[in-house]
Amino acid sequence: MTTPGGWLDAVRRERPLVMNITNFVAMNFAANVLLAVGASPVMSHAREEVADMAAQAQALVLNIGTLEPVWVDAMHMAARTAAERRIPVVLDPVGVGATPFRTRVAADLLATAAITAVRGNAGELAALAGAQGTMHGVDAADAPPVADLTSWARAHDVLAIATGAVDQAADGTNSREVANGHPMMARVTATGCSLSALVGAFLAVAPPADRLDASVAALVVFGVAGETAARRASGPGTFVPLLLDALAALEPDQVDAAARITRSRPA
Amino acid sequence: MTTPGGWLDAVRRERPLVMNITNFVAMNFAANVLLAVGASPVMSHAREEVADMAAQAQALVLNIGTLEPVWVDAMHMAARTAAERRIPVVLDPVGVGATPFRTRVAADLLATAAITAVRGNAGELAALAGAQGTMHGVDAADAPPVADLTSWARAHDVLAIATGAVDQAADGTNSREVANGHPMMARVTATGCSLSALVGAFLAVAPPADRLDASVAALVVFGVAGETAARRASGPGTFVPLLLDALAALEPDQVDAAARITRSRPA
Amino acid sequence: MTTPGGWLDAVRRERPLVMNITNFVAMNFAANVLLAVGASPVMSHAREEVADMAAQAQALVLNIGTLEPVWVDAMHMAARTAAERRIPVVLDPVGVGATPFRTRVAADLLATAAITAVRGNAGELAALAGAQGTMHGVDAADAPPVADLTSWARAHDVLAIATGAVDQAADGTNSREVANGHPMMARVTATGCSLSALVGAFLAVAPPADRLDASVAALVVFGVAGETAARRASGPGTFVPLLLDALAALEPDQVDAAARITRSRPA
Repeated sequence: MTTPGGWLDAVRRERPLVMNITNFVAMNFAANVLLAVGASPVMSHAREEVADMAAQAQALVLNIGTLEPVWVDAMHMAARTAAERRIPVVLDPVGVGATPFRTRVAADLLATAAITAVRGNAGELAALAGAQGTMHGVDAADAPPVADLTSWARAHDVLAIATGAVDQAADGTNSREVANGHPMMARVTATGCSLSALVGAFLAVAPPADRLDASVAALVVFGVAGETAARRASGPGTFVPLLLDALAALEPDQVDAAARITRSRPA
Repeated sequence: MTTPGGWLDAVRRERPLVMNITNFVAMNFAANVLLAVGASPVMSHAREEVADMAAQAQALVLNIGTLEPVWVDAMHMAARTAAERRIPVVLDPVGVGATPFRTRVAADLLATAAITAVRGNAGELAALAGAQGTMHGVDAADAPPVADLTSWARAHDVLAIATGAVDQAADGTNSREVANGHPMMARVTATGCSLSALVGAFLAVAPPADRLDASVAALVVFGVAGETAARRASGPGTFVPLLLDALAALEPDQVDAAARITRSRPA
Repeated sequence: MTTPGGWLDAVRRERPLVMNITNFVAMNFAANVLLAVGASPVMSHAREEVADMAAQAQALVLNIGTLEPVWVDAMHMAARTAAERRIPVVLDPVGVGATPFRTRVAADLLATAAITAVRGNAGELAALAGAQGTMHGVDAADAPPVADLTSWARAHDVLAIATGAVDQAADGTNSREVANGHPMMARVTATGCSLSALVGAFLAVAPPADRLDASVAALVVFGVAGETAARRASGPGTFVPLLLDALAALEPDQVDAAARITRSRPA
């Protein structure tokens, strides 16, 4: 079995090209997170080129944080190419449930776009499930955290990643919890979006059977980097550059020593 | 009377949701400024969702820094919802006067969009007034600083905030000057835009009668944070993260002790 | 002859307005680089205003990093105004060769838009040449670095700047190599884009006959700032703010003492 540090090493060795159709707030930070960890970012959203760009990528990350309709078209176009090439596609449903537009776009992507993994907070995953009718009668806005992420993953046929104080990842059969990270990460914008990009990089170097493990590795690496940065930061401002420094400096052994992973029992 | 530190405390306690339709340069920085001070930012500009998003916000900030026509439509749509809900709307007329397009868009928003407060530098406020015919015969580009901000505020029926070496804020009756801040703030892009977002957060927690005081508090808090950051920064690059650290760490008592506010005589 | 430090001094003294139609990832960083060096940035891309804005600028920078068709229209409109006013236009063909759309847009701009200088990595310059038929039979993606940049510059009638471990600049007659810089600069997104903006600032203060020297000065200043920042940075995250600090603090004498320029023999 490959450890989180082993997956980090694979990302650095293979330098996967991760294509992002993401929001304006996260673009710079997510690109720097990918570079810091050793991956190769590309941002592109024009309908005139997304299929050509996706044809070269090792992973595709779709983030609905600052949507516009033409970007949604581009997401579907890029996802079709990704599906043909069988590269992993990560969906970050930022703010799903907050507006009907966001909810509809996220649900459509999840239903039709060959999504490999969904990364959101528990509220977003609950809202997304509600939008698709698997949570009848529960108002998305009032939905509790996803109690059974394994069932959620099975229902949507994806890898599900719900991040928070403790992160959870589950495919339809198994789940893991990751207790790494630091509260400072919630005090900075676009950390979640950047983590979704990082998940793309780790899935890019993993065979399909290892995707749960690789996504857990992304959670551990980001969390350990956050812990390292928080020890040196004097606040949320200095935390950001120090998080990037930590991502670039992390040794695989250090990651494995600091990993706090628990295996949940199957639901 | 609530002190600046008291308003800061209110922002941290109420965590207002501040919706921003802002420019690409400022998005990440403004979001982090709002998070650092304890508010909750959301960025959204699609016509398909701005009304739904504004329906949940406690303040709306409109910034014309990198305009496009569809964004202007979205600003008007969001502002209509804000007006119905009587939440404060802050207009940042970045670069008004520099092009006829910007001037027309800013003047239209000021005339029709139920703007609560305008935050700009003195030249922008002069240009905006000129565009509306209150400064006939004065070329906007050559306009002097706003000599009488109280009259400006009364003429446009808004809270007026003109920032510079000394900041001024005025409603139609009273005005204040704030001498906090540091020259380093002008060496970094989007500090003014971020301050406009911060004004939105402070207005969000203030009753209408207290809006002048709350906007002054935003100026003081941003200025004191800038002074704190400048003492530690080695240049404009390190100043940015340290400004965010300072915003997050400021104690209300410290803000009140450092505040340099003067009440101007009514004009 | 004006030294690199002398050109830096000229930028600080004249504070040229540099208009950027650039990508979403680079906008904030490029604006801060321009401010740090003492220039004045403006970002604008709406077709409704780009001609008016370009009418006031001292240089125009076009960057195709996150293209959309309406932005391409705006680039051509702004470039026409720049040509009428004879201000320098810098093209940064980010990712040219990666997709047919990018390649076509970059080649069209180079062919029709009165481009003064092209700044890219060697692969981008080779791809751009291939797209225009000057490198028949060489697949752009496999193109070697530009072996003879003087010929490249002459063929396209531009100043050509190819950056990498060693930077090269050439007009159709002369060329220079600049060995300043640090590998950390490649670990951070948008450093190349920001350098293109910086080239715009330096060309803005140089008469046409001195453009090669001025562009070399931009390479030296950015490289020396990078060396300075790398000595203090603990990784790619802290490198970014320290690079801005260094740009703001560099003394002309220090730049000249640290410059590592060689004159290549004419090809």
